[in-house]
Amino acid sequence: MSHNTFGHMFRVTTWGESHGPSLGCVIDGCPPGIRIDRDTIQSYLDQRRPGTSRFVTQRQEPDQVKILSGVFDDTEISEEFGGPVSTGTPISMLIENVDQRSKDYSEIKDRYRPGHADFSYDVKYGVRDYRGGGRSSARETAARVAAGAVARQVLGNDISIGGAVVQIGDIGINGDNWDWNETQNNPFWCPDHETVPAWENLLDERRKAGSSAGAVIEVRASGVPAGWGAPIYGKIDSEIASAMMSINAAKGVEIGAGFRAASLSGEENADEMRLQDGNLEFLSNNNGGVAGGISTGQDIIVRLAIKPTSSILNTTKSITKSGENIDVRTKGRHDPCVGIRAVPVAEAMLACVLADAKLRHRGQVGA
Amino acid sequence: MSHNTFGHMFRVTTWGESHGPSLGCVIDGCPPGIRIDRDTIQSYLDQRRPGTSRFVTQRQEPDQVKILSGVFDDTEISEEFGGPVSTGTPISMLIENVDQRSKDYSEIKDRYRPGHADFSYDVKYGVRDYRGGGRSSARETAARVAAGAVARQVLGNDISIGGAVVQIGDIGINGDNWDWNETQNNPFWCPDHETVPAWENLLDERRKAGSSAGAVIEVRASGVPAGWGAPIYGKIDSEIASAMMSINAAKGVEIGAGFRAASLSGEENADEMRLQDGNLEFLSNNNGGVAGGISTGQDIIVRLAIKPTSSILNTTKSITKSGENIDVRTKGRHDPCVGIRAVPVAEAMLACVLADAKLRHRGQVGA
Amino acid sequence: MSHNTFGHMFRVTTWGESHGPSLGCVIDGCPPGIRIDRDTIQSYLDQRRPGTSRFVTQRQEPDQVKILSGVFDDTEISEEFGGPVSTGTPISMLIENVDQRSKDYSEIKDRYRPGHADFSYDVKYGVRDYRGGGRSSARETAARVAAGAVARQVLGNDISIGGAVVQIGDIGINGDNWDWNETQNNPFWCPDHETVPAWENLLDERRKAGSSAGAVIEVRASGVPAGWGAPIYGKIDSEIASAMMSINAAKGVEIGAGFRAASLSGEENADEMRLQDGNLEFLSNNNGGVAGGISTGQDIIVRLAIKPTSSILNTTKSITKSGENIDVRTKGRHDPCVGIRAVPVAEAMLACVLADAKLRHRGQVGA
Amino acid sequence: MSHNTFGHMFRVTTWGESHGPSLGCVIDGCPPGIRIDRDTIQSYLDQRRPGTSRFVTQRQEPDQVKILSGVFDDTEISEEFGGPVSTGTPISMLIENVDQRSKDYSEIKDRYRPGHADFSYDVKYGVRDYRGGGRSSARETAARVAAGAVARQVLGNDISIGGAVVQIGDIGINGDNWDWNETQNNPFWCPDHETVPAWENLLDERRKAGSSAGAVIEVRASGVPAGWGAPIYGKIDSEIASAMMSINAAKGVEIGAGFRAASLSGEENADEMRLQDGNLEFLSNNNGGVAGGISTGQDIIVRLAIKPTSSILNTTKSITKSGENIDVRTKGRHDPCVGIRAVPVAEAMLACVLADAKLRHRGQVGA
Repeated sequence: MSHNTFGHMFRVTTWGESHGPSLGCVIDGCPPGIRIDRDTIQSYLDQRRPGTSRFVTQRQEPDQVKILSGVFDDTEISEEFGGPVSTGTPISMLIENVDQRSKDYSEIKDRYRPGHADFSYDVKYGVRDYRGGGRSSARETAARVAAGAVARQVLGNDISIGGAVVQIGDIGINGDNWDWNETQNNPFWCPDHETVPAWENLLDERRKAGSSAGAVIEVRASGVPAGWGAPIYGKIDSEIASAMMSINAAKGVEIGAGFRAASLSGEENADEMRLQDGNLEFLSNNNGGVAGGISTGQDIIVRLAIKPTSSILNTTKSITKSGENIDVRTKGRHDPCVGIRAVPVAEAMLACVLADAKLRHRGQVGA
Repeated sequence: MSHNTFGHMFRVTTWGESHGPSLGCVIDGCPPGIRIDRDTIQSYLDQRRPGTSRFVTQRQEPDQVKILSGVFDDTEISEEFGGPVSTGTPISMLIENVDQRSKDYSEIKDRYRPGHADFSYDVKYGVRDYRGGGRSSARETAARVAAGAVARQVLGNDISIGGAVVQIGDIGINGDNWDWNETQNNPFWCPDHETVPAWENLLDERRKAGSSAGAVIEVRASGVPAGWGAPIYGKIDSEIASAMMSINAAKGVEIGAGFRAASLSGEENADEMRLQDGNLEFLSNNNGGVAGGISTGQDIIVRLAIKPTSSILNTTKSITKSGENIDVRTKGRHDPCVGIRAVPVAEAMLACVLADAKLRHRGQVGA
Repeated sequence: MSHNTFGHMFRVTTWGESHGPSLGCVIDGCPPGIRIDRDTIQSYLDQRRPGTSRFVTQRQEPDQVKILSGVFDDTEISEEFGGPVSTGTPISMLIENVDQRSKDYSEIKDRYRPGHADFSYDVKYGVRDYRGGGRSSARETAARVAAGAVARQVLGNDISIGGAVVQIGDIGINGDNWDWNETQNNPFWCPDHETVPAWENLLDERRKAGSSAGAVIEVRASGVPAGWGAPIYGKIDSEIASAMMSINAAKGVEIGAGFRAASLSGEENADEMRLQDGNLEFLSNNNGGVAGGISTGQDIIVRLAIKPTSSILNTTKSITKSGENIDVRTKGRHDPCVGIRAVPVAEAMLACVLADAKLRHRGQVGA
Repeated sequence: MSHNTFGHMFRVTTWGESHGPSLGCVIDGCPPGIRIDRDTIQSYLDQRRPGTSRFVTQRQEPDQVKILSGVFDDTEISEEFGGPVSTGTPISMLIENVDQRSKDYSEIKDRYRPGHADFSYDVKYGVRDYRGGGRSSARETAARVAAGAVARQVLGNDISIGGAVVQIGDIGINGDNWDWNETQNNPFWCPDHETVPAWENLLDERRKAGSSAGAVIEVRASGVPAGWGAPIYGKIDSEIASAMMSINAAKGVEIGAGFRAASLSGEENADEMRLQDGNLEFLSNNNGGVAGGISTGQDIIVRLAIKPTSSILNTTKSITKSGENIDVRTKGRHDPCVGIRAVPVAEAMLACVLADAKLRHRGQVGA
């Protein structure tokens, strides 16, 4: 019954609306003695920050994170750990909302934007903070990124998590060109430099037309030891699926070969094993690093589908709260492709799932 | 921390191994006064039962369910409800394993079958009931089907849940031919009678070759009112994704347009709304009945990808527990396409998610 | 696994240390449409506030609460509800720490104060915010009181919750003099005006001697309908016991006749029932309003024992972190009897348990 | 939301009614590689078994436990562990009900026995298995004792848990005579041989008079390391209080000095510390082994008050379901003092809390 909490032992509770005074999260269950560096957390927030290119929303939010609890420093701690560390008590973090323009939204107060959560929230709750989508806004994901940064510290340096956009609209990358460094060189987290110009064209076109585009994201974790996760309903891939589907606009999740596995034969799909010089080698990774819900030691590979931004300038048919047929145009500042800024969010969610799996494993099995 | 429990208010805990004396489930949170009919539960178990065609495992299990607690009947109850009803206390159900042939498995005791959970379980737990895959066997899903039958009773007659196989190997159905009745007329849950012969050929071929095939399943729920589900980490699509990914061999989940949504423009993807004669009509259902994690009142549409059965007669490269390279062939009785028997399981999981969502909604919002 | 979260459907997560920048709570699961009034919340915080008499700590904290999320207002809402209401999303509240004097604590950094959590925290966590007890300080209870004020709104006006101190040191009240109004007229929440002078003397004496006193608190809830709670491990008295024992310095909890019930015979203890003019009347309330873990409709009556404040000026024998025998005196500003300020905290916890029980009942049974 | 589940990582779900075919439990989260011996579990069940003296109910139940899952044995396991071990999957245990005499209860079908849960269950659920109290019967505790036996195995031999009755009616023991061995020599779990005859007289008298008596139980755990438990709402004493209050007929719980602590001064109550020959010694144990919710390494000492059995032969005033005033006498076979058979149950609950705390600690802190 944790609608706003994610995780079992590394538990992240987020709070806050798009146009309220602030938003934030409370992390309960971070082990003690973990080095927590505000600047590192901030650097992940900066990756998700709006207003960094013409392909994302122009809302200007500095997204400066404040750590309010759960982290301590004194002379001895600094000497031992090199700076502030977690104490095992809840880590509360807060980010102020600075650039709310609530009046942009007053006219959608009684109008349901198609594809948005306006209608479903209103049916459920009766009352609703409609400004910028309120709680259903992707602005909530800033808190996830802050939590994910702490999760990475719990995982340690042996585990690395990276993300990329592999498709925008109907244009996919050429996987043979994959270069992680390239994801830092373009505004799309695109790992294939040859695809970048095509995406620029596509998104410029959509943006000018007041339209939007969907995307497919891939996130990978390397260095996860075999044995994390748990059977049946605590499967690590179940946890990942839940985490990814909780991201705004996500409509699909797959692990390893995913939907493509349906077309393979048993032989093609089998991830055969061999010992090479005493080390276990898998000859393929169709399982995406998970078998029976438990990590195999291979890279964990996840893809998620993000639908096109529902906020578009073009008119769509809708209704009002009081039951009139209307045409709706969404003003305000929006991402032409929300999939782009979802990359650091998906990475953060994967980090949270893995940090949780690490602690659960340690508790249940003792390693 | 509920590795073997699914749900928040309608909580299903399953237990049992493939070759132990029995398996079962305990449902905690079933509301009182719900009519519980053993024959109805049995009828769903019969849908999943092995040995019903040449396209599924030949293991012979009657799968007779016993109800051990939580259901009561006396004269007054029978008069009011027409038979036994739930009392609000835990419903314990048990199914005996009858046709275990443990010796089939003695030779895989120290061998890791590629694609199976043998290796990951062994790394995690150190000890393991290897007979038939132990806890990781799809036999566990019998308990899910029993629980799902109770969940359907909680949902009532206004909500109907159906499932179908829409792809086997690389052969997909023609959606224009969709006929729910047809799913009862062939051994594949295929809704398109024209596709049936192609699947027969494909699976006969794979079966004879000692190989296997993957599948894509679609499950739908009709009649779910708008407003069920919850924001952020309790999203109904997050719950569905977790539930589906927990099914053995599942590698992908999508809701509504799913991965196809990535290719659509904002206009194409928007599920426009219109009032027609006072009734709300959506002009499309790309959202698959969920917006912002909350049901919209449209059909909930879910697809999941099932990988080809990992148990194949053909040899694959693997290693032993003690670290030797070997070739593995999996004897025993297996499904050439586990996706077929996963249909009633996927339906059951969707029923459980919805029953849980119904109770959560009632608790939080009061409707 | 919710070390800092209380409740199942009305979930309160608190965070913050005694000498950090602030503390607060996040309430997840508050139903929508509940009137949330900051001034009302503040009035409960003022009851717990330090510095209000010579019998409580002299630390000066205004304890001004800020509501950061989950509450919304606009013209229509104000017209319908009379002011801001909950939206069903997380309610985040924050209280700044103003009067920290961290240097008071630098000398206890490596010293374990007997009776305190210094030693057990250090063994558990290795690192620790020792300033004012850090997370183990009763300062955390300010957040509980804020949450309890919201819980009361969820319960509505038909349910009233009151608390009183019924024993300080070895001086108990005369129950025949019980007057709820009197609890507002003295600094002890004493319902018996005749006992007040004796407590004044006792506490003045202890305070001057650098010592402290324990207390017994009684809290009651009236108007709770029969049927709330749940069997076995979700019993409402189990929840109450857990909630009360979580209050700093609590060492015992009893419901109704409590430990005295052990001395009664079955006849004496039976709460006999009679219908009087069509209304159910119980002839006694030894069960304290709970039978089989479910409310009976009678007043819920709870008592808890609070040990004497462990922070005393008199020297006690202890050890240092590095393993030396020392004598410890606790400077700083302390409550001579922490039981007094625990009254609004115990009331708040009972309110939270009942709000949670209300939502759970509604979810499971539908009423 | 786990009404029938206890624990966070060592999770025990019980099911079954007094007069159904069987009852049982599912333990989820037992670590792998724990030696599970059916005979040992049975020996604890034999301690709680009815019909062993004239001071307990005469219902004849062999209470033979069957282990249905989660435990495995083969040649290698037997060689390494000496017999069957846990595999980390759910341990399902079942106990058949043999000596139900349902007709004894037909006449209380519509009558509410004072002090029992008949009325509150009926108000809550509307339908109810009234035979022998159904789910509210103390018969459910057989499943707890089975689970507790497994919990002891998880704790290992360094931790010992014992229980005793310290008061029956208004006759308390002389603590100076405490002898654990004596608890095995009399039918009362009395540690003071001098008190035994007085209790015999008291209970013979009550039994003949058709009445009953209450009791106070003390349970202790030795060998628990310092550092288990967690702050705030996961306090080990909160967990203990919840566990004990969930036992049928429990009305009060205290830890260490408990309610007596209210009468002590800060100096008297402080558990001073000294290093003696390098070992930490506490000079008293008023805290009962817990400070700030975390174990101190001292014995954990818990007392609980059990009210007199509500089932008495003497007539009491009550009402019927349809609203008539009646006089009720409870036939059937009952314990004149349910506190006696609650001793192994209280021990089992303490074992479960500690096994859970061990796993939680390991998960969160890594020790």
